[in-house]
Amino acid sequence: MLDEELMGQIDDRIARLLPASSRADPLYGMIKYHLGWVDDRLQPVRNDPGKRIRSRLCLLSCMAAGSPPERALAPATAIELVHNFSLVHDDIQDRSRYRRYRRTVWDLWGEAQAINAGDGLFTLAQLALADDPEASPWVIMRAFRALNGACRSLCEGQFLDLDFETRPTVTVEDYFAMIEHKTGALLATSCLLGALYGGAPEPALDEYYNFGRHLGLAFQIRDDYLGIWGDPKDTGKPSADDLTSKKKTLPILYALAASAGDDRARLESFLAAGGPAEETEAAAILAILDRCGADSYTTQGVERESRNAIDALSRAQPVPEAAAALTHLCEMLSLRTR
Amino acid sequence: MLDEELMGQIDDRIARLLPASSRADPLYGMIKYHLGWVDDRLQPVRNDPGKRIRSRLCLLSCMAAGSPPERALAPATAIELVHNFSLVHDDIQDRSRYRRYRRTVWDLWGEAQAINAGDGLFTLAQLALADDPEASPWVIMRAFRALNGACRSLCEGQFLDLDFETRPTVTVEDYFAMIEHKTGALLATSCLLGALYGGAPEPALDEYYNFGRHLGLAFQIRDDYLGIWGDPKDTGKPSADDLTSKKKTLPILYALAASAGDDRARLESFLAAGGPAEETEAAAILAILDRCGADSYTTQGVERESRNAIDALSRAQPVPEAAAALTHLCEMLSLRTR
Repeated sequence: MLDEELMGQIDDRIARLLPASSRADPLYGMIKYHLGWVDDRLQPVRNDPGKRIRSRLCLLSCMAAGSPPERALAPATAIELVHNFSLVHDDIQDRSRYRRYRRTVWDLWGEAQAINAGDGLFTLAQLALADDPEASPWVIMRAFRALNGACRSLCEGQFLDLDFETRPTVTVEDYFAMIEHKTGALLATSCLLGALYGGAPEPALDEYYNFGRHLGLAFQIRDDYLGIWGDPKDTGKPSADDLTSKKKTLPILYALAASAGDDRARLESFLAAGGPAEETEAAAILAILDRCGADSYTTQGVERESRNAIDALSRAQPVPEAAAALTHLCEMLSLRTR
Repeated sequence: MLDEELMGQIDDRIARLLPASSRADPLYGMIKYHLGWVDDRLQPVRNDPGKRIRSRLCLLSCMAAGSPPERALAPATAIELVHNFSLVHDDIQDRSRYRRYRRTVWDLWGEAQAINAGDGLFTLAQLALADDPEASPWVIMRAFRALNGACRSLCEGQFLDLDFETRPTVTVEDYFAMIEHKTGALLATSCLLGALYGGAPEPALDEYYNFGRHLGLAFQIRDDYLGIWGDPKDTGKPSADDLTSKKKTLPILYALAASAGDDRARLESFLAAGGPAEETEAAAILAILDRCGADSYTTQGVERESRNAIDALSRAQPVPEAAAALTHLCEMLSLRTR
């Protein structure tokens, strides 16, 4: 139901924030490359903007609050930029050389310039929010606090995520705290800001926030599911990729808590050993996960958070047509195969 | 003339933005360490806040506009945090292991966590600006645009600075464009924001901006002077440190343009060769700099920018007492030996 032309306006708004020509053109080139507008020689390419879940949620929440979605274009643009800033820095932190089948900014231009390009995206996000002559300064001020509150949460979540890599023990509780911050807060704020710009009343704002938060948790848990049981044909990643790389995702952490005896000992020594897993070892760990029901536990987690999201949405008393679109988006994200 | 207790309130405001206790405490520990509040074991230490030029300029500009300085505490805090965010990322980018005789954040906690700690400081800067119930939303909105405009400039300057390292030719003009963005913009914005919160009229705001901008240029050129001719006893750095590390600072770039024949050829091959300079080589380059008058050219640059700064300040028609303090600060920074 969301006009795709409107999603294109987000790019227009980002483009407006970039100087036409300056000595720092190559910096903006890196930013455009990351956004998928140009190739690694900075030549224009056909743009696949991806799912853009966060800005989509923002615009749909604005409609759900009874206003035309274009009213929330400024926060939708800001959120998209914050998300992209975090991806650029994430890729450096994780040493990821590829994202969406393209080389990452740091892999092409080096770490130092990539850190700076991420900082540039963060600054552009703030400018995108301020660039809104139609919203009242009170609304924008509140949006600034909410957006940067979400960014602080994001940094806290990222701290935890990085910390998990080197910590000997991580519990399921630790994991939920991490994704709450790293994924939940920004998706929650996407919905909150859409509803705020759409003029939703105060108690409804909390429910839009909760809707986005639970949807974020469902999204992340589904991601963890696909990281182990996803079909390589759909995900574009090797089979059981998170398992091979020994990432401490929910299925693994659940299995650590739910298994016993030999299984548990094997899991523990698997995670403690350095380097990626051998194929036979990964198969043995996968069998342990199956024995303790980690797959259905994970799927149930997605379903629970998805249900919680839809419950929160209904309490927000959204406009029916937009509510249907938000519910559909939530279901689609919970069932996605890639 | 600025009450030092007021400078302490900047720390109080930063502290207010940090959660009392959370799973992400170690993240805030890194931030406190960088700010000099705790040691590397996160134990409290006597805090040496340093010069804090930017926040000092902000508060003094507020007084110069005829208002009590505490009115500009929110932007002064935000600017201090922006400056510190840029230092944390700068140290990673430059591989600097020490800052003010202390190990840097990335050297202690690794690059990934240091990138994230810098991002956290950047977010806190935004929250510091928003945390101001006394300023009008219009003033805060304008401050947001100005501060993030300065951050965009900072990123552009940082791009150029990093780019200079690998570029075969850098001109004196390139250099001025770089410091204009990397140093000038944030110091200019410090003064602009102080005057804005102090209620200065529109044309005066431009002059406060220009005052800070020229002062920033003077400050940076003086830095370049000290990087070559500073006394190690004062600077705490080895003699001719920038020369040994082959940094493309103003004296070197001037000498490249002003020298000829053998001197120029030697300078060019010096900069083109990888790795740090030998002591005898550095001495020979220093002699070339002396022959073409790079030291007096650099000193004259500081004096010119300092004079331009004071001229701009007088056009802003500041309150005399605060104007005297700003002029004194400008002179002190232009003559500093460390």
